[in-house]
Amino acid sequence: MSFSRILKNIAAKKARVGIVGIGYVGTALAQANAANGFTTIGFDINPGRVEQINASGQKNLTASSDFSRLAECDIICICVPTPLYPDSKPNLSQLESAAQTIADYLQPGQLVILESSVAPGTTRNILMPILEKSGLTAGRDFFLSFSPERIDPKNEKHSFKSIPKVVSGLNHFSLSLARSYYQKLVDRVVPVSSLEAAELTKVLENTFRLVNISFINEMATYAKTLKLNIWEIIEAANTKPFGFLAHYPGPGAGGYCIPVLPYYLYHHARSHSLQLPLVKTAININEAQPEKIAQLATQIISKKAGNLKRKVLMVGLSYKPEVGDPRESAAVKVWEALDRRKFDVAYHDPYIPKYNGTTSVEVTPQTLTVFDLIIITTAHKNIAYAQLVSSHIPVIDTRNVLRKFPDKHIYRL
Amino acid sequence: MSFSRILKNIAAKKARVGIVGIGYVGTALAQANAANGFTTIGFDINPGRVEQINASGQKNLTASSDFSRLAECDIICICVPTPLYPDSKPNLSQLESAAQTIADYLQPGQLVILESSVAPGTTRNILMPILEKSGLTAGRDFFLSFSPERIDPKNEKHSFKSIPKVVSGLNHFSLSLARSYYQKLVDRVVPVSSLEAAELTKVLENTFRLVNISFINEMATYAKTLKLNIWEIIEAANTKPFGFLAHYPGPGAGGYCIPVLPYYLYHHARSHSLQLPLVKTAININEAQPEKIAQLATQIISKKAGNLKRKVLMVGLSYKPEVGDPRESAAVKVWEALDRRKFDVAYHDPYIPKYNGTTSVEVTPQTLTVFDLIIITTAHKNIAYAQLVSSHIPVIDTRNVLRKFPDKHIYRL
Repeated sequence: MSFSRILKNIAAKKARVGIVGIGYVGTALAQANAANGFTTIGFDINPGRVEQINASGQKNLTASSDFSRLAECDIICICVPTPLYPDSKPNLSQLESAAQTIADYLQPGQLVILESSVAPGTTRNILMPILEKSGLTAGRDFFLSFSPERIDPKNEKHSFKSIPKVVSGLNHFSLSLARSYYQKLVDRVVPVSSLEAAELTKVLENTFRLVNISFINEMATYAKTLKLNIWEIIEAANTKPFGFLAHYPGPGAGGYCIPVLPYYLYHHARSHSLQLPLVKTAININEAQPEKIAQLATQIISKKAGNLKRKVLMVGLSYKPEVGDPRESAAVKVWEALDRRKFDVAYHDPYIPKYNGTTSVEVTPQTLTVFDLIIITTAHKNIAYAQLVSSHIPVIDTRNVLRKFPDKHIYRL
Repeated sequence: MSFSRILKNIAAKKARVGIVGIGYVGTALAQANAANGFTTIGFDINPGRVEQINASGQKNLTASSDFSRLAECDIICICVPTPLYPDSKPNLSQLESAAQTIADYLQPGQLVILESSVAPGTTRNILMPILEKSGLTAGRDFFLSFSPERIDPKNEKHSFKSIPKVVSGLNHFSLSLARSYYQKLVDRVVPVSSLEAAELTKVLENTFRLVNISFINEMATYAKTLKLNIWEIIEAANTKPFGFLAHYPGPGAGGYCIPVLPYYLYHHARSHSLQLPLVKTAININEAQPEKIAQLATQIISKKAGNLKRKVLMVGLSYKPEVGDPRESAAVKVWEALDRRKFDVAYHDPYIPKYNGTTSVEVTPQTLTVFDLIIITTAHKNIAYAQLVSSHIPVIDTRNVLRKFPDKHIYRL
């Protein structure tokens, strides 16, 4: 019986694990598997990623573009991106294509786990039918689970191992296998009653973040109107030991999850004739932040005599501090908003040497002289902030990194 | 110099403290003062409250309706309610009247502290001018502070003493005195830079709560549409050790602060031509919850044959568990919504024997027989829930207190 065989293999850590999609989620999961003694293969259509994994030389871990080797695996984890189309509708094309490839090689007794963030019902109604094109029946011939990733890059307090993992299964067998598997990787597994409950858990976590980031951005506008410093007020509120969780204003939520998943939620709710006005308002506020910064930039520069040059230096392009990843970054959306207003934009980011045909500008007293305005969009640590301030160029500080400097020439949101 | 005299009195705990308004905030503050050795007088126009304090016999603590005795005090704390008018506009009449009374007896060198929740600017622009009608100048002849209350009745984890206290002052002298004073009462004092910063801190804390309660009520509607149990999903999300704070669905936020202060914020922002769409959406959702419950009640009862009797038993009337206080309670708003739909409403609340001319119904198998529907609106512990369920009367459980019982006849939001 395949169920007991795979269960035994998991217990003995002899199960072979395939990770489909080795971006930051898949790579972290693959590394955790390998570190825990599971023979792990990372699959990706991107040869650069495959090479990178293979070059790392981690024990038990290889990568491959040969998806026929999925047939060797006992467990297949899907970690492909689930982004948005330009019109903000969910783009499941990579998930569907991964599912089709897995279906081509699906073996009886395999456990397939989806880790990508999706709207409730996606595992059952989109992934499962594609996998069943293999001729195998989910829950009987193969096992199906959804377990949302909670990886937080650069979080120094919480590791992959210490973050509890929510796990669900199509049926009892599927859940049981997925629990046993993740128990080998993390300190605590949290089983829930259905695939959809696990899917909604992830949606809730991320939408909570967007709602609170948009709320604090709304409060920042109000505080600014009153000439109050919202950052001081957040710190004071944050001394309340219950019923408060600090979020901070900025150019908008970034990353793959927080600005993306609320759209999955919103469109799914609408397909059920539900409006979700609070979530939609939070989305609208988040979308408007870059334009608000561009507006402020226009105001500041138009105060200056001349108003012919409009050269802006953006400091920080990645979606969070200390990572080199500009995808879904609010900074990029600020750039786009500045473009629409015909600013001449350059950037400095120590983690991103090149972006979109331009090169990160070195910050020196000489290079700074050409700029009319600086906008700090990511709170990287290793930036020469004192040098930026001493240039006497106006600065929009969207991240409060300049709190220690006198306020002259510094604009907040 | 009066500043150094009062500072010395505070240090020696010889300062006499007057608390104006001895509702639950004022009483807790008065008790903390007395327990810390300050001679404390509670002032109230309500003779019942005065008697209650005097009957308690707590050392150092008396109460009085004779406001001329304010002249004996070194420190005067204002703890009067700041509710809403029926049209949801801020009602500062009790604050203004208290201020006028204090002005009548104001003495040089006194420190006046406002603890009531208000919109930013209220201490400076409303309280101060009334106090200065005394002929004394704030900041010079008397001292003025705002320090928001954070009392959470029945919170077993955080006491008055352990909850950090945000403190502000009109000027350096005022802040300095207020800090010294509160340092005698609580473990940690958090000074902020202005009266308005302290006022906004409290507004932020409470609006955060309303936004998140309304968000989870919106998510509960979505989960219900998908036939998912939102409570299970909140518990799962709550295992995330960062970036999440659990809030729970229900009949709407209750109490003096959470549903009230966002209106102070909203109207104040509008007076500055700001709209705050997210806060307004949260208010709207919160206001709509009672009607949603009344709608669900109508649906459930109309399913039953007959549809002539519409007798509803509401279980729990107070605004939070284990207190006997129905003011600003969401349960009362549910009652009003049921009234509008011509339900015949009775209630059971062990903490509120009588309300508005009706008496709390004893829960027995006999008394229950007359009801067509039960609605649980407050999650008191000492309710015979098993008896309610075994009556086989349909129950709307807005608080998930029946989670251990089989789902039959139990409706969630």
